[in-house]
Amino acid sequence: MSISDKLVKQIEFIKEIDKLKTICRQSVIADGSREENDAEHSWHLAVMAMVLHEYANDPQLDLLKVIKMVLIHDIVEIDAGDTFIYDVEGNSSKLEREEKAARRIFGILPKEQEEEFLSLWREFEAQQTAEAKFAAVMDRLEPLLLNSLTKGHTWNKYGIKSNSVLEKNLHVKEGSVEIWHYINDLIEDCIEKGILER
Amino acid sequence: MSISDKLVKQIEFIKEIDKLKTICRQSVIADGSREENDAEHSWHLAVMAMVLHEYANDPQLDLLKVIKMVLIHDIVEIDAGDTFIYDVEGNSSKLEREEKAARRIFGILPKEQEEEFLSLWREFEAQQTAEAKFAAVMDRLEPLLLNSLTKGHTWNKYGIKSNSVLEKNLHVKEGSVEIWHYINDLIEDCIEKGILER
Repeated sequence: MSISDKLVKQIEFIKEIDKLKTICRQSVIADGSREENDAEHSWHLAVMAMVLHEYANDPQLDLLKVIKMVLIHDIVEIDAGDTFIYDVEGNSSKLEREEKAARRIFGILPKEQEEEFLSLWREFEAQQTAEAKFAAVMDRLEPLLLNSLTKGHTWNKYGIKSNSVLEKNLHVKEGSVEIWHYINDLIEDCIEKGILER
Repeated sequence: MSISDKLVKQIEFIKEIDKLKTICRQSVIADGSREENDAEHSWHLAVMAMVLHEYANDPQLDLLKVIKMVLIHDIVEIDAGDTFIYDVEGNSSKLEREEKAARRIFGILPKEQEEEFLSLWREFEAQQTAEAKFAAVMDRLEPLLLNSLTKGHTWNKYGIKSNSVLEKNLHVKEGSVEIWHYINDLIEDCIEKGILER
C-alpha cells in the first residue's frame, strides 16, 4: 500500500511539533528541579480541563473543544518563543510573531486540518467564546499552582508583586467565577506565607 | 467564599500529577538531546489523536474518549515507573504495580471522578474497545517516529531487531489498518537506512 500525500503531511506535522518539548517557560516544575516546557505544560492544562470543567461559567461548555485548544495553544511558540506574561516589550510584538508562526506550522497539515487548527488557535487568542475563556482559566491557574509550590519562583525572580498577579488574573472571572475565587484565596495565602510580596 | 472539599481534592490531584514530568521514558526527543518524559509524551499522543483519528478502523470512534485515555494512560507510572516494552521481567509485575498506583493516585480525586479516571485507564489497559485500540496505536507510533528520527536510539541501545519491533506492533492493526501499513513501511525504511537491524 502506498502512503497517501495526506498522511505524509500529517506525520510531518507530528514530527515538527516535537520541538514544543524544547521550548522552556518561566515556571519551574513542582519539584523545582528545572524549567517547565510547553509540551508538558499543555498536557497539564488538558488534564486540568478534564478535572475542573464543572466550574466553567457556561454549563454547556464543549469540553473536547477546550481540550483541543489547550493542547495546541502554545504550538506557535516553536517559532515565536515563549513570551513572559509580564514582559511588556515582548507582548507588543507577540501577536504578529505568533500569527506568522501559526500559518507556517499549521500550514504543514492538509488544508482542512490547517483550517481547523488555525481556527481553534485564533478562537483561543480572541477570548470571546466560553471555551476560549475556560481554556485561559487553565492557562492562568497552572503557573499559579507551580509558583505556590516553588516558593514563588517566578514572582521572586522578577520582583512581581501581588497587585500585578491579581490584575493578570482578573479575566479568570470571565471563564469561571469559582476558580477566580479560588485563585484570589491562593494569592492571599501566598502573601501570608511570605512567598509573594503585597 | 470558602473553597469546597471537592475542589481541594481536585487541586490536590492536579498538583500530584506534576510528577509525571519527571518520569523518563526510553525514547529520546526528536533532537536527541535528552530522554522524553511521560507528560510531554502524553501531550504528543493527544495531538496525534486529533490529527489521525480519521484512520481509526471504527468510523464511530469517540475522539474525546481517546484523548482522555492518552492524557491519563501513563499517570500510574508516577508510582510504578516506566516499564520498557521489551523488558520481560518488568512486564510480568507491571499489572499489579500499576493497579495499585491507579487506586492511590486516582483515589485523590472526588469519588465520581476517581471512578471515571479508573474506568478510562482500565479500558485502555484491557484493549477491548475501539477507543482503547486506537489510543494504543498512538502510543506505539510515537516512539517509532522518535526512533526513526534519532538513528534508532532505543533499538541500538538494547540491540532490538526488526522482528521484535514488528511483533510489538502487530496489534496496531486492531486499531488502524492504515497506520499499521504506514508503520510497516517505516520499519522497512529504517532497515534500509541501516538504523534498525533486520
